[in-house]
Formats: sequence, structure tokens, C-alpha cells
Amino acid sequence: MKKKVAIVGASGYSGEELLRLLLAHPLAELTAVTSRQYAGQTVAQVFPRFSLYPGAKVLRFSEPNADLLAKQAEVVFLALPHGVAAQYAVPLLQLGCQVIDLSADFRLKNDALYREFYGHDHPAPDLLKKSVYGLPEIYRAQIRNASLVASPGCYPTSILLPTVPLLREGLIKPTGIIADSLSGVSGAGRKAELDYLFVECNESVRPYAVPKHRHLSEIEQELSLAAATVVTIQFTPHLIPVNRGILTTLYLAPVQHFESGTEVPAASSTDAATTLAALSEKIAACYHAAYGNEPFVRLLDPARSELPDTKNVAGTNVIEIAWRLDPRTGRLIVMSAEDNIIKGASGQAVQCFNVMCGFSETAGLV
Amino acid sequence: MKKKVAIVGASGYSGEELLRLLLAHPLAELTAVTSRQYAGQTVAQVFPRFSLYPGAKVLRFSEPNADLLAKQAEVVFLALPHGVAAQYAVPLLQLGCQVIDLSADFRLKNDALYREFYGHDHPAPDLLKKSVYGLPEIYRAQIRNASLVASPGCYPTSILLPTVPLLREGLIKPTGIIADSLSGVSGAGRKAELDYLFVECNESVRPYAVPKHRHLSEIEQELSLAAATVVTIQFTPHLIPVNRGILTTLYLAPVQHFESGTEVPAASSTDAATTLAALSEKIAACYHAAYGNEPFVRLLDPARSELPDTKNVAGTNVIEIAWRLDPRTGRLIVMSAEDNIIKGASGQAVQCFNVMCGFSETAGLV
Amino acid sequence: MKKKVAIVGASGYSGEELLRLLLAHPLAELTAVTSRQYAGQTVAQVFPRFSLYPGAKVLRFSEPNADLLAKQAEVVFLALPHGVAAQYAVPLLQLGCQVIDLSADFRLKNDALYREFYGHDHPAPDLLKKSVYGLPEIYRAQIRNASLVASPGCYPTSILLPTVPLLREGLIKPTGIIADSLSGVSGAGRKAELDYLFVECNESVRPYAVPKHRHLSEIEQELSLAAATVVTIQFTPHLIPVNRGILTTLYLAPVQHFESGTEVPAASSTDAATTLAALSEKIAACYHAAYGNEPFVRLLDPARSELPDTKNVAGTNVIEIAWRLDPRTGRLIVMSAEDNIIKGASGQAVQCFNVMCGFSETAGLV
Amino acid sequence: MKKKVAIVGASGYSGEELLRLLLAHPLAELTAVTSRQYAGQTVAQVFPRFSLYPGAKVLRFSEPNADLLAKQAEVVFLALPHGVAAQYAVPLLQLGCQVIDLSADFRLKNDALYREFYGHDHPAPDLLKKSVYGLPEIYRAQIRNASLVASPGCYPTSILLPTVPLLREGLIKPTGIIADSLSGVSGAGRKAELDYLFVECNESVRPYAVPKHRHLSEIEQELSLAAATVVTIQFTPHLIPVNRGILTTLYLAPVQHFESGTEVPAASSTDAATTLAALSEKIAACYHAAYGNEPFVRLLDPARSELPDTKNVAGTNVIEIAWRLDPRTGRLIVMSAEDNIIKGASGQAVQCFNVMCGFSETAGLV
Repeated sequence: MKKKVAIVGASGYSGEELLRLLLAHPLAELTAVTSRQYAGQTVAQVFPRFSLYPGAKVLRFSEPNADLLAKQAEVVFLALPHGVAAQYAVPLLQLGCQVIDLSADFRLKNDALYREFYGHDHPAPDLLKKSVYGLPEIYRAQIRNASLVASPGCYPTSILLPTVPLLREGLIKPTGIIADSLSGVSGAGRKAELDYLFVECNESVRPYAVPKHRHLSEIEQELSLAAATVVTIQFTPHLIPVNRGILTTLYLAPVQHFESGTEVPAASSTDAATTLAALSEKIAACYHAAYGNEPFVRLLDPARSELPDTKNVAGTNVIEIAWRLDPRTGRLIVMSAEDNIIKGASGQAVQCFNVMCGFSETAGLV
Repeated sequence: MKKKVAIVGASGYSGEELLRLLLAHPLAELTAVTSRQYAGQTVAQVFPRFSLYPGAKVLRFSEPNADLLAKQAEVVFLALPHGVAAQYAVPLLQLGCQVIDLSADFRLKNDALYREFYGHDHPAPDLLKKSVYGLPEIYRAQIRNASLVASPGCYPTSILLPTVPLLREGLIKPTGIIADSLSGVSGAGRKAELDYLFVECNESVRPYAVPKHRHLSEIEQELSLAAATVVTIQFTPHLIPVNRGILTTLYLAPVQHFESGTEVPAASSTDAATTLAALSEKIAACYHAAYGNEPFVRLLDPARSELPDTKNVAGTNVIEIAWRLDPRTGRLIVMSAEDNIIKGASGQAVQCFNVMCGFSETAGLV
Repeated sequence: MKKKVAIVGASGYSGEELLRLLLAHPLAELTAVTSRQYAGQTVAQVFPRFSLYPGAKVLRFSEPNADLLAKQAEVVFLALPHGVAAQYAVPLLQLGCQVIDLSADFRLKNDALYREFYGHDHPAPDLLKKSVYGLPEIYRAQIRNASLVASPGCYPTSILLPTVPLLREGLIKPTGIIADSLSGVSGAGRKAELDYLFVECNESVRPYAVPKHRHLSEIEQELSLAAATVVTIQFTPHLIPVNRGILTTLYLAPVQHFESGTEVPAASSTDAATTLAALSEKIAACYHAAYGNEPFVRLLDPARSELPDTKNVAGTNVIEIAWRLDPRTGRLIVMSAEDNIIKGASGQAVQCFNVMCGFSETAGLV
Repeated sequence: MKKKVAIVGASGYSGEELLRLLLAHPLAELTAVTSRQYAGQTVAQVFPRFSLYPGAKVLRFSEPNADLLAKQAEVVFLALPHGVAAQYAVPLLQLGCQVIDLSADFRLKNDALYREFYGHDHPAPDLLKKSVYGLPEIYRAQIRNASLVASPGCYPTSILLPTVPLLREGLIKPTGIIADSLSGVSGAGRKAELDYLFVECNESVRPYAVPKHRHLSEIEQELSLAAATVVTIQFTPHLIPVNRGILTTLYLAPVQHFESGTEVPAASSTDAATTLAALSEKIAACYHAAYGNEPFVRLLDPARSELPDTKNVAGTNVIEIAWRLDPRTGRLIVMSAEDNIIKGASGQAVQCFNVMCGFSETAGLV
């Protein structure tokens, strides 16, 4: 009844969270977990905080070995650095496993784009067409039958879920999109680098990778598919002193003019108010149609003046979305908050796993 | 030789920092400091951390009284809530004092605008024309002869200094400006409200006052003056878990096209590169001309890939500015970092004081 | 099959966490939750982060009413301020409910002691003898049959669990005990006071309530029972800038001398080493006997040089305990870490609930 | 008139702060600053936040060279790792420089003790007798004439200043002393290690190096000198999530009994109160005599119920001290707070420099 699963590479923040989620998953049996660094130790020894979970005291980390993994597990999660994941995906797929990859290795459809953003040739370009981008709210049907799922990055999730329905419905222009994102430090991974020391991050806020962050490639790929035209966006990530969470603020241009400002002098203020009300209804309807029944998307209530806050999603697989139309500028501001390690990584991977297995999508995630 | 100064209202974060700066100022003699709450206590008793400064053990807080203050001080700093400051400014000016007001009471030139954003009639509209907006890098000459200086807010400073020179030079369009700002919690003031409790702010990031924050009024007033046309901007403030600092990311549209993207297909990529290089030079020259000799503006070196970080300005009166042209989108991204309580409030007020008195502008600020 | 439960007062940090635990509890049916402030709103509206739990969208906060509660629930949790809890406990018990009180109202056995530490007469002194101190690891048998459980405070839990077994076994002296504790800010409650503002707590560490904190009364009561003699301890709480967690360091005097230092010159160093080894075995055996099978006590492994860390217990009902004998001073240092809101409050209350109902003790807590 | 000074090794947190203090010092001329890593770059390039200080844009980091340094500076500060400092101190002293060493290399008087605690032979044992322990409040006279000053560690300063006067006066027993200390993360240095990453320190509190931290050696050496007998103490350091600050809580035993508790049943409660009052006066008098005129020791006022808080000393060279007698236990609790990088390292070194040069002791430190 339970699905046998394995994790390759579980020493980083995403791998650790994935381990926790799968140990607690009612329909998954974690049969193998690999880590060169921890091989031989039990899960409870390496992560004492997981010792209450059944199995944590007996399951031992092992050296990664595709042949062995294929015998132990039906579904294998890869929580490895970019470039390394492909080395395991290829043999595991050949041996009949389903693979859910948390790295960026299989997110792009185009190997030239991969080369541009990652600086080297893709190690297994044939698999790019086979892989499914693991955003269940967008690609549920494809994930259901996928053998290889590329679980999206944390920034892309926070940008795509608020934007894709609007683009698909043609409510916003595909040009001029700006995404300003604030990420907790766990997003940088468990790496011993000076930049991520406590003293360097605490009481500090800073942009980085301006203006061309690697995640732009998958964001623009998916936005282009949604808009059915090439989309180029502006994306500015910032590092802020929290452990968990991404807050993204999106600046979007509605197709319909509603502003009463000086830039569109022709519209009378009554007309503008009417147009604004009509547009508000369309946007609310669009989001409701897209996410009204989604368990992990929380549409905040404008009537209650709610805005997203990372503390309301930390530790959960939920993304919060709120929006405001600005009658002064004619812009649509959309804001989202998610836990970068859960909905932005491991929780999403488990959600994909649930879809692939035909389980309830919230299994192990509430 | 020393200028006699007083502070009205010194129990908030800005007032406390102003107190520290004036206690340490080599050319100021702090003769009075008022606070209803602390009247009768010495400065050292209320703020033990200032006890090393000469005078902190003898100077006592008193009840605010304009007549008395006018006898004790030549220059009076008002660190009071919006609306209250005007009540002291009027009599103090009549009694011959110079006034530096840290509230929003005298920042706007137009009392209708004040009513729109602050919700009530301005208490002393005649003074609006007399007051000078206290940004020394922009209004140094006017501040020199001012009797009433309205020290700018923290968000406006972080937005105006990076933007005004570009607008004045006509390098960017006055339309479509977006300012995305991240502020430390001291910006909310020393107020006993649930929203600002440690547990509510720590491990939290959130936007607020979307889309119409009060500070928009003074920001747009000053941008409009710089552009010589009405400017309406998009401004989104966020609260982040640091004590001090504002990081602002500005999205601007250069007048000159330089992008090689699909949106401007006519430009060949060689032409685009040439245009980009030329535009880069113009922007660098514009900033160098505006701020090359400014002691408190640090233009970060693109050659060293430097980006602003609030920890590099916390505790100082410096604003850091960096910029990037994005050849993919054609946008100019400008980023600034400042200490919201110093360059965004009290340090700037002291800088204005130095200008008004003909002192070296860095006196008491290094 | 499920037990019907209610929560009175769920707007503070402990009440909110209790709400989360009971919403997710597989054997509890939360039928009522009261709050004057939130009456009429659903749980999902007040705490959006709980909206995924079944029932959160339909269960509404109501005004507290003992008669009604007694009809709705078999077990009622009181998450109310000290002094207020007793007002509900008395009628609820009379109406046949079992009561688990998270306040300090029923923790002391002696109403004179209550008066000394809480400053007023106890409102229901007759109940003091009836109530059971809700530390399952110490009072499991009594909790099983209790109608009124007084769930212990966060500091007491962190001090009693490491100390009681040693006192019961006579391994340490009942005199001279020192407990130095560090608490996260949620311990102060969700109160709008200046002292607990983000800016006042961040980058701050401070002792408070020195030398006589209220929790001393219940700590000393329980230590005295364990030692079968009157025990007076030194206790210093400190506030540190984390949301969750208590770290306690205990300084204890073993009955047996083992130090090779100058204070006990008679012992040769060989003898001292032998004695130390023997004592180490006794302490290890004592803790193993007391807690070896306890699901929520994690005895850290000295062979792995492990020491407690609040981040390893945050979000769980686990307390970590480690100890070291110091051959230089002859002292036993015991250190514990727990989540102050879970094992130090709400989780412990749910653990008691499980014991009272005959459920698996970990139900709803893993 | 100005003293020529140099810093060897300025890339760590203490070195950086020392650089700032000496750049701003009115009576010091910083002529050289060395760093292998930064050689060739200006101070302003490496530390942009210092660019406002005169000299920061022209002074360049150089490779360390004792001969050259001896020509450039009269006083040389060593901010180097333990063990490395001695390699520079020996030639610099021979070449006639005065040396202020911030490492542990010259703090101990006894090379056997050094070997026990640091694990290797001392590289220059002859200098141990020559060096002066740089606590100005204790060794001012000796520092005045010293050629080699060993600036104390951060933990020792926080423990010694509150304790030495009491031991010298014979008010407390030299036995049974316990020091429980909480340190900010900068105390661990600017080292790229996983343990000090933001995510590992934030929302974490943990003891470490229990029970034998290296600093015990210098603490016990100095306490033994003050008590004129061998003193062995208990010391437990903890890491807490702040950048700056050490909070130490000391548990001390007054020579005189004053408690009314059960442990000393002979004393009537009236006698106990009288004794407590008398002892309080003695302790207050002792501290007043020792530190009443010290600029950098702030004795908190018991009448105002003040307790130390690291935020009140962060960024300053001040140590705060408060104390309480506990009539329940007979103990004296003394608490101190300091900035670990300033009074605990660089500020103290500058204070020693001022003493050595005959300058006002607060020069460059207010």
C-alpha cells in the first residue's frame, strides 16, 4: 500500500526538510537515504530532532548507488547540487524508477538556455523533453503520468503561481513584468561561506545577482508558455535575515486601463472607478477559478485588508497571494509569501509525489 | 562659538538618536531637552548608554514650553508626532528661533495635498511656503538661509537621492517609476503595538500600506520638481526584521533605448552594446557630478561588483547607491541603503543644522 | 471514539499553539474555542495559517460560557491569565468536565505560598489538593485519574525534568542548586508592552526578575517533594532574542566527591578518576532508568559530545538533556533545551490529555 | 603630538573594530595596517563603511613586515590568531616598539598553564613575565610603563571586573564561584564554519566548550592573584543570536551569612535583615571605591531596579555591572554586560594605549 521511496543527498536544508516530510508521510516508506558525509550513521544520529519519527533510529545513511537504490525504491528524490542530479537521474530512470529532482537540472526545456544560464552543456539533453515541471497547480495532469519531475525553485514558485493565471487569461500584459523578491538565508544552502555567517546576515539586507539571476531562465520559460509569447522579466532577489521564507512583490500592467491619473487624462474619474471595479472582479474571478479549490494556495481576503506575511506560511506548504489595483498608477500589485524550503522545494516535491501516486494531494503535508 | 540647541520630544527612536548626536556634536551646546514622560530626570538616567557624554549627567528633561525654549536655544529640533510639531514651530519661529522639524508637518508645499494624505487641515498653512525641504544634497543653498527646515522622511531620502539627479538630467523617464523599499522595525517608532512585538516581526517579512503610503506625497512632490512635470510613482514598503536600515530598489526607464531584447527588435546587438556603454557613461557622469564630492553619499564601484548592504551604513549618516543597466529589459535598476534613523531622520537633521550654521557639514557626524 | 475538547482563551501564544495541536490531533474533536476578542470569527479567519486543518473554516470563536462549554466538551483546556483560570475551573469541574489548566492557578499545593508569590488570596483553595501537577514523566499515574491537571510552566519543566531523578536517587545534594535559564520572547506572552518590541529585544540579552521569579514557588515545591526535604534554589531567567525555546544550565553538587582539585586535596588523582568514572555510570544509569523509554525526553550522547540546542527542539514536544561532570570543580553541570510553548506549555498539556484519556502519549504530538 | 600606530592583521571582527577606533582617534596616527589577504587595497576599499574617516582612502593594507613596521610606528597592535602574535611581538619589541597584543599569547604568566590550555609550548616564554595584563581598571599603573600589553579576552573582562574588587576586599569566598556567560556570534570570529552560519545560529541558543573553555586559564590566574589563593571556577559559555555583546551572570558566596532560609536556622529574621543591610552597604562601598571614578564602568542603580542589557553597551567601551543579594539563598548575584568586540577586545586595547601614552583614557572612545 505504501510507496517505497529514497532520498539521494540529504545533508542540505532542502534534503533535511524532505527527510522530515517523508519520515512523517502516511503513505510513503522511506527505504534508503544517501549521503557520502553521513554514510553509516542513523537518521536520528545525524538529525536528532527527527528521532521521534518511526524508522529514524534504524534507517542508516548509505553511499549513493543507483543500482541499489532502484532495488530499494519505486520513487527516488534527488536533493543534489545542480549538475550532479543528472548523473543519478539517467540510470535510475533506465532502471525503472520514477525520479523527482529538486535541482535545476531538468527544469528547462531547451539545452541552449541551460548552457546560457548554467555555463556548461547539459549532461542529458534528451531527458529535457521528458521531464515535467513540478508545479502541481499548473501541471497536475502531466505530473500524474511523469517518470521524471523537475521540482521548481523557490523564487520561480513565488513568481509563477501569482502570475500564470493572469497571463493565461490575458488580464495582464506579458511585457514589463517586475518581480522583487526577499529570501531567507536558508535559500543559500548549508554552505560554509563568509557571506552567510550570522554576523554578516543579521542586521543586514542586500540585493544580489542583479540583474541576471539563474532562476530567470525557468521563470521566463514558464511565463512564456502561459502568455504564448516570449516573456522577459525584471527580477531582483534580496537576502534578508530570516531562516525561512520568500516574499515576492510583483508589478504588473493590466491590459485594461482603469487609472484616473494624469497619464491617461481622457478617462473621467467616474469611468475610471467603474473600470477599476470591473477589473477587480475579473482578477478576483481569475484567481478564484485557478486556485479556489487548491489546498496549498491561500487567496487573502481584500475585504479584510490582508497582506502576505512569511510567518503565516513558514513550516507549511502554503503560498499566500494578495493583490491590489492602484488607481493612481494603473498597476496591479500582486504579493506572495511561501516557505522557500517547503512550497519552494521539499513540500512541493512531496506534493508532486502525491500526484504521481494518486494519493490525496495533502497527504503528509498538513 | 557653540550654537545653543534644544530638542522637543526625545523619547522615540529618532529623538533618542538626535540626542546622542547633539550630545557629541563639537559645535552644539544642548541646553534643553523636553519630554512630558521623563520631565525631571537626567539624560543619563533615562538613557544610561549616553552617560559618558559630557552633560548627560546634569542636563534634565523638562516639560515643553516654547517661551522658555526660545530663551535657552537658538536652534530647536522638533522630534514630535505629525500634527503636534506645528504647535511648537509657530511660536518658536515667532520668538526668533530657527526650527528643524523631523515630522511631516512642513514637508509639503500644498495644504490640499497635506489634507489628502494626512486626513485633516494643515494647522499652519502659511508656513508651508517658508519651510525648506531638508535634503542638503539637493537644497543646500536654501537650507543655508532657512528659518524652518522640514527634515525628510526615511523612505523619501532613500528614493529621492538616487532619482533626482537622473530626472534633472533627463536621463530617465518621469513615468513608470517603481520604488520597492525594505525598512527596519525602528521605522515604526517606539510604540507599544502588537504588530511590532519581537515575536511578530522576527522570522517575518511583510508588505504594508499598499498601494498608498503617506510618504508618497513628499516623494512625488520632490520628483515632480526635479522632472519639471507631475510625477506619480509606485511605492511598496515592506517591514523586515532588522533594527536599523532601509534598502530601496528602484526600477527606472532610461530615455535612451539600449536593450537587445525582443521588445526592441530594430536595434542590432552591436548597436545595443554601444548604446549601453554610452548610457553607462552618462549615468556614471551624472551621479559623479551630483555626488562625487558629497561626504554622505557613497557611490558604489561597479568595477568591484559592489551592491548596497544596510549593515555598511547602519550607525552612519551615509547613503550607499549602486546601479545596473539590464540589457535584457532596457531598465535601469538603482539600489540604495541608509540608516533610517540617521540619514533617514536625525543625522540628516544635524547635517541641515551644520549647513544652517555654516559649520563643516560633517561636524558631529563622523 | 474521539474525545470532545474545548479551549477557553486562545489568543495568546500558548493558546494559539494549543489550538494548532488540537486541530491536528487524531483523537480529539475540538468543539468549542472561546475568545472575547475574536467571538464570531472562524479559526481560519483569526489564524489563517491553520486554515488547512479540517474544521478551521467552520469552527467559530465564541464568548466563554461554562454551562455551554460543559455541554460541548468532555475535556476543557484553560489558556487564560493567572487568576482568571480559576473562575472557569470551578464551575466546569462541578459540571463534570475534566480540566487542564495552563495557568499557574492550580500548580501550588499551599495557598500561603500562592499568596506569597502571586500577591493575593487563592480564589479556590480547596481545589489545590485535588489538582495534579501535569508533568507526565513524573506524575503519570496521578494524571491518569485526574479531573484537574495544572500544566507546569516553561521554566519549571526545563529545571524539574533534569533534576528530579537525581534528587530522588540521592545523587546530588538538595542544597546549593542553581538554575540559569534563557528564554525566547514568546514566554512573555502576546502583550503590547515596550519591553517586548522587536527593537528592544533584538540585539539585546538581559536578566530579569532577579532574584525572586514567581515560578520559583512551583519549582521549589516539586524539588522539595523529590528530595523529601525543603529545597531552596537560585534561579536567574534571561530574555534572549529568539521566538521559541528555553535553554537551562543547572549547577549541581554530587553527593560523592570526585574532583582532583585543590579543594579536596586528600584524594589522589587516580582515586579521583576512579570515583568520577563510577559517578558517571550512576548518573547515566539514573537518567536511563528515568527517561530511557520516555518519548519526549532526549538524553544526549556524551560519546558524541552532544550539547542541547533550542533549534533542535523548537516546534516539538521534546526536551533535550545533557550533562558533564567537571573534575576541576567537583560539580555536575546539566543542560536542557525545550520549546517553551510546546513542552513548556501546550504540548505538555496535550501530553497530559493523552494520559488522561488512555491514548498513546505521542498522539497528535509527532 | 600624535602617536604613530600600526595594526597587524585587521581582517577579523576585532581587527576591523580596532581599525575604526584608531582611524577616529584624535591622538593616534595610523601609519600602517597589514593583511596578507588585502595587501594593496585601501582601507576604504576593503571596509567601505570607514571611508568617511580621514586617511581611509589613502592608507593601504600591506604585507606584514616587522622591520618596516618598526620604522612606521611607535605602538603596534597585534590582532592575530593565538600562536601567530608571538612571532611579531618578539622582533617588534627588540626593535623598540611598544606592543599591544589582542591574542591570548601573552596573557598567562606561566608557560605550563599555557601548554595545558593551548596544547603546545609557548613560543616566547621569556616574555610572559614582561607582559602586563591589559585591564586598566586593575593594572593601570603597570600598563603605564609596559612595553608589552596582553589585552584580555572578552569573557575574562566580563567576569574579572565584577569579581576582582570583591575578592580583594575579602567580601566573597574564593571558592564555588560560577560564571554563566552568553556571547554574541562575533565572538567566534569571522570564520567560514557551518556552526556559525546564520541559519544555524538564528533561533538557536546553545552552551559550548563545557566544562573547560580556554579562557578559564587567564580568568583563574587573575582571580587567584586578587584572592591571594588558588581559585578554580565554573564557567559555562553559551552562544546566542546577537552580533555583539556578552552578558555574564555570576553566582558568588559572601563571606558573611545574611540569609534567613532554612540552611542557616540560627539567624533570626531580624538579624538576617540587619546583616543583609550591612552587607549591601559593604558591597556598594566596595564597588564605588573600585569603579566610582572609572569612565568605562557603569554601576547600575539598585534603587532604579536597573539590570544590565547588552543593547545598552553595544558599540561602546562600557561595562555595566549590577548586583543583588538573595535573602533566600544567601548568595550574591552579580551581572555584567559589555560589547565583546569593544570593551572585550579592541576598545580595551585602545584604552590601554591611552594609558601607555599618558593620554586621557577616554580619548577616541566616546
